[in-house]
This record gives sequence, C-alpha cells and structure tokens, in this order.
Amino acid sequence: MQETPYKRLMSRTKPTRRSACPISYALDFFGDKWTLLVVRDLMFGGKRRYGEFLNSDEAIATNILADRLAKLENAGIIRKSADPQTRARNVYRLTDKGLDLIPVMLELAVWGAKHDPQTGAPMAFIRRYKTDRENVVKEIRDRLAKD
Amino acid sequence: MQETPYKRLMSRTKPTRRSACPISYALDFFGDKWTLLVVRDLMFGGKRRYGEFLNSDEAIATNILADRLAKLENAGIIRKSADPQTRARNVYRLTDKGLDLIPVMLELAVWGAKHDPQTGAPMAFIRRYKTDRENVVKEIRDRLAKD
Repeated sequence: MQETPYKRLMSRTKPTRRSACPISYALDFFGDKWTLLVVRDLMFGGKRRYGEFLNSDEAIATNILADRLAKLENAGIIRKSADPQTRARNVYRLTDKGLDLIPVMLELAVWGAKHDPQTGAPMAFIRRYKTDRENVVKEIRDRLAKD
Repeated sequence: MQETPYKRLMSRTKPTRRSACPISYALDFFGDKWTLLVVRDLMFGGKRRYGEFLNSDEAIATNILADRLAKLENAGIIRKSADPQTRARNVYRLTDKGLDLIPVMLELAVWGAKHDPQTGAPMAFIRRYKTDRENVVKEIRDRLAKD
C-alpha cells in the first residue's frame, strides 16, 4: 500500500479516543486500528458474527468491517462458514495462523494497560498473564480451538 | 483518525513486499507499516539517526519518516537529543515506554517468522526467545538502556 498526501494529512489529525480497551489504546499509536480489533473481538470477545463486530465499543463502520473481514480471510487469519443457526449468515473463526496472534495481542494489552492512564484493562488477568504467560496463552488457545 | 473513501480504496490495493524481515511481514497485515518499523530500527537495528532510518530495506520516504518520528515523540515512545558528534543533527532513543514494546515486537517477529514462507528471520534467535522469553527481553532492554 502506497502512502499518499491524503493519508499523511489524515495521520496528522489528532486521533479521538474510542474506548478504554488497552488494545485499542495501543493501536491508536500504530495506525490501522481496525484489523486487530476484529481479531481481538474473535479472540477475547466471544464474537463471531457480522452484527456482533458492529456492536463493539469502537463502533466500526459497516464498510470498514466488510473490508477488514475480507482482508483477514484472504490472509488466512480467519475463516468463514455458514451459521449453523440461520444458514443465511456467516460465522467467523480464527485459523491456526490467527490463533498464533494470541501472544501479540496479549503483549499489546500489557503495554496499553501500563501506559494508558484511563485503561479499562482487567488488571488481575494482566498480572496473571505476566507471571504465567505460557499457560494463559494455552488456555485461551484451547478454548478457542474447541468452540 | 477517520476513515475516508480514499483510505478504503488504498487498503484494497495489494501490498507489495518490502523486505524479508519477519516484523515487516507481520505489519503488512496490520495497516500502517511505518511506525513500528522505526521502533524496530531503534530496538534491533542499532539505528539512531534520520539518515540511518532512511537507509532501511523498506525504503521509508523522508516525509513519512519525519511524520512518524514526530508522532512517536509526541506519544512519549522516543526522545530526541542533539547528536554529540555534530550538534547539528539529532539522535533518537527509545524511552521507557518505548522499551516496553520489546515483547510486542518480539511476538510480532515470532508470528512473522512462522507464517512467512520467505522469512529472513534469525531463527536461532527466535528459538532462543521462545524458550527463554524473560531473559531475552531483559538483555535487549539492558543493552538499549545502557547506550
């Protein structure tokens, strides 16, 4: 993706605060805030459906959500299948490649939780992760793989 | 930062490959590839000067580099001081808040190294990190703090 004058101009505008989520806070510094937020919703939010992603605190726009879901599917990070309840809708799940992002997301959360004075991070969970990284990653992975 | 039709259009263009670096590979999926690449150069590349960042494999444009250095400085992730050798130029260093990104960067590297079939990642280092995360983070941090 090429940078253009439009994008540079936009990157100088002050970002607005979207939520107290520590991962969202971290990504406010890192550019495209949306792609990893969809991953976060799948990973930690128990979300799987288009409408559920739309309802997150950060209020992703429907056209951006559709774009990011397609991008994540093309990259092999998520996969789509027919919703067993309705057949008319899709459900999304993380692939193994997506599940391998668990440590990245947790480290972003640790950083956001530490440096955001208004963090809404679950601090007991963050502390547990910091003292027992391997097991916390394994627990989250096993739970998601079983779903 | 608001999304606009310009940006959405751009995000549909196919990204071009910039280097074999595993961190660069990971960020190709995550939007703004430049901010964390400057952090990477400071963290793992021994770089500190404007011209050194310009010379990285990914060939960052000078206007984008200036924008990202200002953004990182405003966010308290890097700090700038006069170059002791020339006084006319600046040197950049990671702050404590920037050093706290070491685990994020290493986990991005682990992910990129695993999923990029053309990775140029130093695999012996990646393996060592995976078996001894705490000490590897501490070593890198101590080295950077001493510089």
